[in-house]
Amino acid sequence: MIQGIGASAGIAIGKSFVLPNWEWEFPEQRVDVADFAREFERVYEGIRTSKHEIEQIKDELREVVGSDETQIFDAHLAILDDPVFMNEIQGIIQRQYKAAEVAVKEAIDHFVTMFDLLDDEYMKERALDIKDVGNRLLKHLLGAPEITLPSDTQPFILIARELSPSQLAHINPNNVLGIVTLAGSSTSHSAIMARALGVPLVVGVEAKLEEPIQTGQSLIIDGTEGLLFIDPDDSLIDHYSELQGRQAEDRQRLNSIAGHRSVTPDGKVLGLAANISSLKELEVALSSGAHGVGLFRTEFLYMDRNRFPKEEEQFEVYKSVAEKLAGEPLIIRTLDIGGDKQLDYFNIPEEDNPFLGYRAIRISLDRKDLFKTQLRAILRASSFGQVKVMYPLISSVEEVRAANHILEEAKQELEREGLPYNAHIQVGIMIEVPAAVMLADLLAQEVDFFSIGTNDLVQFTLAVDRMNEEISYLYEPFHPAVLRMLKQTVEAAKRNQIKVGVCGELAGDLRALPIWLSLDVDELSMSSHSILQVKERLLSTRQEDSRSLLPQLLECRTCADIHEKLKQFMDSVDEKGAASAI
Amino acid sequence: MIQGIGASAGIAIGKSFVLPNWEWEFPEQRVDVADFAREFERVYEGIRTSKHEIEQIKDELREVVGSDETQIFDAHLAILDDPVFMNEIQGIIQRQYKAAEVAVKEAIDHFVTMFDLLDDEYMKERALDIKDVGNRLLKHLLGAPEITLPSDTQPFILIARELSPSQLAHINPNNVLGIVTLAGSSTSHSAIMARALGVPLVVGVEAKLEEPIQTGQSLIIDGTEGLLFIDPDDSLIDHYSELQGRQAEDRQRLNSIAGHRSVTPDGKVLGLAANISSLKELEVALSSGAHGVGLFRTEFLYMDRNRFPKEEEQFEVYKSVAEKLAGEPLIIRTLDIGGDKQLDYFNIPEEDNPFLGYRAIRISLDRKDLFKTQLRAILRASSFGQVKVMYPLISSVEEVRAANHILEEAKQELEREGLPYNAHIQVGIMIEVPAAVMLADLLAQEVDFFSIGTNDLVQFTLAVDRMNEEISYLYEPFHPAVLRMLKQTVEAAKRNQIKVGVCGELAGDLRALPIWLSLDVDELSMSSHSILQVKERLLSTRQEDSRSLLPQLLECRTCADIHEKLKQFMDSVDEKGAASAI
Repeated sequence: MIQGIGASAGIAIGKSFVLPNWEWEFPEQRVDVADFAREFERVYEGIRTSKHEIEQIKDELREVVGSDETQIFDAHLAILDDPVFMNEIQGIIQRQYKAAEVAVKEAIDHFVTMFDLLDDEYMKERALDIKDVGNRLLKHLLGAPEITLPSDTQPFILIARELSPSQLAHINPNNVLGIVTLAGSSTSHSAIMARALGVPLVVGVEAKLEEPIQTGQSLIIDGTEGLLFIDPDDSLIDHYSELQGRQAEDRQRLNSIAGHRSVTPDGKVLGLAANISSLKELEVALSSGAHGVGLFRTEFLYMDRNRFPKEEEQFEVYKSVAEKLAGEPLIIRTLDIGGDKQLDYFNIPEEDNPFLGYRAIRISLDRKDLFKTQLRAILRASSFGQVKVMYPLISSVEEVRAANHILEEAKQELEREGLPYNAHIQVGIMIEVPAAVMLADLLAQEVDFFSIGTNDLVQFTLAVDRMNEEISYLYEPFHPAVLRMLKQTVEAAKRNQIKVGVCGELAGDLRALPIWLSLDVDELSMSSHSILQVKERLLSTRQEDSRSLLPQLLECRTCADIHEKLKQFMDSVDEKGAASAI
Repeated sequence: MIQGIGASAGIAIGKSFVLPNWEWEFPEQRVDVADFAREFERVYEGIRTSKHEIEQIKDELREVVGSDETQIFDAHLAILDDPVFMNEIQGIIQRQYKAAEVAVKEAIDHFVTMFDLLDDEYMKERALDIKDVGNRLLKHLLGAPEITLPSDTQPFILIARELSPSQLAHINPNNVLGIVTLAGSSTSHSAIMARALGVPLVVGVEAKLEEPIQTGQSLIIDGTEGLLFIDPDDSLIDHYSELQGRQAEDRQRLNSIAGHRSVTPDGKVLGLAANISSLKELEVALSSGAHGVGLFRTEFLYMDRNRFPKEEEQFEVYKSVAEKLAGEPLIIRTLDIGGDKQLDYFNIPEEDNPFLGYRAIRISLDRKDLFKTQLRAILRASSFGQVKVMYPLISSVEEVRAANHILEEAKQELEREGLPYNAHIQVGIMIEVPAAVMLADLLAQEVDFFSIGTNDLVQFTLAVDRMNEEISYLYEPFHPAVLRMLKQTVEAAKRNQIKVGVCGELAGDLRALPIWLSLDVDELSMSSHSILQVKERLLSTRQEDSRSLLPQLLECRTCADIHEKLKQFMDSVDEKGAASAI
């Protein structure tokens, strides 16, 4: 058993196929001055072919994993178009009389070393991009062979030193049972793609391997736990086959409750909605029994282009989603870029602390033209379903009023133009900044609903960037301070008789369910793959029991105390469930 | 009148001296292979001379502006020692047969272009460093003349296109009345140095100048407002002379109350303490009538070296400060690095959001060895004065307990070693993370005092990085949410009968004084130059009047409302003051 890093969940059992490392061979002779033009042309030709190939991969891949995962290839295209890169290559040819492939190789090495030297994670990722795109270009210049994978009738577990997103783009997820890379991290682009493709992936096993894996060896990988077994014995295979089977059964059992109402045994109806980013994700949400969409992240509509989407384009998407939801609620969140979400065509100056920066509603209120275009599109879609609009990152009453003022203007414009819209469209805000919690009573008087964004709220409340591995242990949603903030927010909403939902990751966390029931929130919105699990537990958890838990939770002074109380509670629910089943 | 950017406050009136731009002349002939060694040696010699010169500047400057302002020269030394830089130079000599000075010039241009291309503020600053140090090296290689400034008997206003920190280091602040640079920003290293030197500085006037300024022209500059007047008429000179005089008078009047007690007319005693970073700053604090030190920032003790300071070194400093304070309280904050404060010899991995990262108490609890060394030094100093210890960035009860546990260990060690310390040393925490406000009632049961760090608290509460110019308008300490947090914190402290002070910038903001009086905090700790102004106002503000203001402030829904109420209040205090003076 080898402990690696789990980078994409799931179990795979099968034979290995080891991706061969191909050795490059470079021409050694000097290039004559007379042949410079030919070598330049070879580089241009290689770049054209590479760009064409990347565009193709991008198109194919978009179908499989959606467009937000293919953005990395835009970075590749940008490198090929970068005049600095081309200048460096031409310089080496001219000054050192070297052939195109050698010049490309040296230019790549130069940039990679340069970026590596900077000792900066972002730059190191850029170095990988340059390496990946450079190797593609070299492949064309050297006429290197494509590596042939086993035929589609023989599913296998792929072994490689590293896998670039380009290479991953070529695999057939139906044929590749799982992947092991010797190097790599769980946050690389490749890992993100493997998760999107649904292929189990274990990375970082190099140091643990005593001898290299050979093609044809029997393997088990567990992408959830990051485990790799080489030549497992039958009992181990049986164990993992059973586990694989159980996971499949769980999926089946959960699917059987997709059509059930989401209600506790004592009658509390709790709406379970989906967080989605695209029309495509809506399909998955609906098949998971989502009760509407609690968070439509519109930024992906903006990321998917090389310019701001027009009102008409946005309207078409919002309208389609609203229509498919057939009267179920649809909460459209206005543009939430900045932080870790950027647009290629909208330059946000480099920020020291982007999470505390120019983002979300701050950009919308600064760029009123963009904001009004989006609000018009949302308003127009509101006559095709139960559409609501929600502003992100609100930190003051002023911001809500300013946003609502622009919404009013948009309504008046539509009115004048005779375009239909719902004049009584509901307006809500995300509660995700500590200031919004402190002012929840005032904000509740300005809007129709709250949606608590736990991810950002926890980050700001604890002053912890959860993406920062060094301190990720401090990112603790089950923190007494967070619990008090949740309570304060929900109580302010109730006192002012407005609806309150939750749309951060905590909404889909089974452990948090008793908290939501005890606080009596109206809706949980989560990623589609959590909905059925939460519903299953909701069907067996009495709200009355949860309510009596709340005072105990509020007495807790530490996170450990809260976890302990929640665990005791869940165990007691499980016991009751087991008892009633007998 | 030309509107530039005020980069260092104060008024200067005098004649201009324009720093000439010196044109470099580079040798054109190729270098023979046989002479490579000689050229290499010339580069080495230039580097040695430059390093020697930089060390000298650093030593001289440390006397004037303190050691934290001279760190930039460490960056310069590091560049000269960088093998990548030297390799690039040697490569150009060898491959292109160029002379040392040409190779240095090209290497500098190459790196500067490279860093500039990265479109990142930090990198651009590094590019400036490379340019500055590179020009110094070139100066030696080319034997360029030192620029001679006017003699010390003729004070002048210095005009330059750009001023590097190296150049600024050479000026005599008694002779240079003020500085104008055509380019530049208020956050550059040079601007920071001008402020430390106390020289008025206006930057960024290039686009506004119709024709270049000549040496000997009559000028007025106002570094507070960023104004430049060329050939001003007599009435303008009179006006600014008067203003200059008034500023001097204000200083004198304030100095006259340095010895007064800090108490309101109706008898509320409010301790006005100083925030300091070094023994040297303590002198300024004491001459400003500081009632003890409310915040000793120990990180500068760590920044000032190339390794962690030993227990003995820390002890000596803490002891000296405690002794000089002669029984007045001294709050020593444990190491608060990370965020925007880094140590050269302690590598914190590059972080996407350093303010939400690995910093302050998080590092101390992770590196218990360092933490215990500091606590031992603080404890040993505690037998020489009224020393208290304070932990920064606390976000949970667990952290306080973990820190106190290490403090207990340190006490036991000292006990065993027979070293004296105050066994009842008071322990406090910074309240600067929203979670700490939410849990203030629980935290108050674990410590002896709170100190509210308004800078970070406002940043986290509003999710605004105040250093980010794009959104700095959102950094608003007079925010209803912040006011509620302040109230919640102070009330929790009072209920648990522990002391509560304030040590963020808001403590020294005159507008905030009625808030502190109404909440009845025990101490304000601020930068020394604010103490007398705050004391002057304290002497004329009745706490009783402030108290009646609080409910009105708490009713405010917007920042504008709060500002309006505070302004009305201040005007009424001024009127009363004026009336009682009649």
